[in-house]
Amino acid sequence: MPTPAQIRDTVERYVALMNAGDAEGIAALYTDDATLEDPIGAPAQRGRAAIRSWYQVSAGKVRLALTGPIRVAGGEAAFPLLGTLGTPESPAYLDIIDVMRFDGEGRIAGMRAFWSADAIRKA
Amino acid sequence: MPTPAQIRDTVERYVALMNAGDAEGIAALYTDDATLEDPIGAPAQRGRAAIRSWYQVSAGKVRLALTGPIRVAGGEAAFPLLGTLGTPESPAYLDIIDVMRFDGEGRIAGMRAFWSADAIRKA
Repeated sequence: MPTPAQIRDTVERYVALMNAGDAEGIAALYTDDATLEDPIGAPAQRGRAAIRSWYQVSAGKVRLALTGPIRVAGGEAAFPLLGTLGTPESPAYLDIIDVMRFDGEGRIAGMRAFWSADAIRKA
Repeated sequence: MPTPAQIRDTVERYVALMNAGDAEGIAALYTDDATLEDPIGAPAQRGRAAIRSWYQVSAGKVRLALTGPIRVAGGEAAFPLLGTLGTPESPAYLDIIDVMRFDGEGRIAGMRAFWSADAIRKA
């Protein structure tokens, strides 16, 4: 099982790569056969190629900031985020919690994002 | 599927009942065949009787406060909590994220808690 420090490091890299819009770098954090469900209820993406394509559309579009500690339990983690959408002149905000499951080497084996479009707010 | 408002109401009642130490009231929020894993990695409790017994030991021992919005997605929710343990003279703190899955009538069908004992802190 990966250590809590390994898991926290991967989560912090994930947030930084999202803000850099680096879909290739994000896909490399995942296992070959990982699954992605963002938001929960949307069709799941399966496998690194599908996940890379998904991030090519989404990475860099939402600015993410951790709003609290990364909670680690077993080989999993959950962490709260504020997402900022829109333009600097007209931003919109979204509260998110991401949940990730890791493999023995600390790669992301599954990711599920808790948010809904009706929670997007202007302030 | 329960509405986001129903789900948020159940989560708020859960937190209030935990702080009141009301194991019976908490167990009534769950479905008959619900599962509970708190923290993730601990043996899962299955069924309302096992869940009631588990809360008879734990409810009222940790004071819970929501530290951010309840995120709802599909029929699930995730929410960040600060748990306060110990005595008023010597408190200890723990950051938690709980994840819950609901049935069609808004009862809790599954609960998983993200925290680890090594994250308990004195300030």
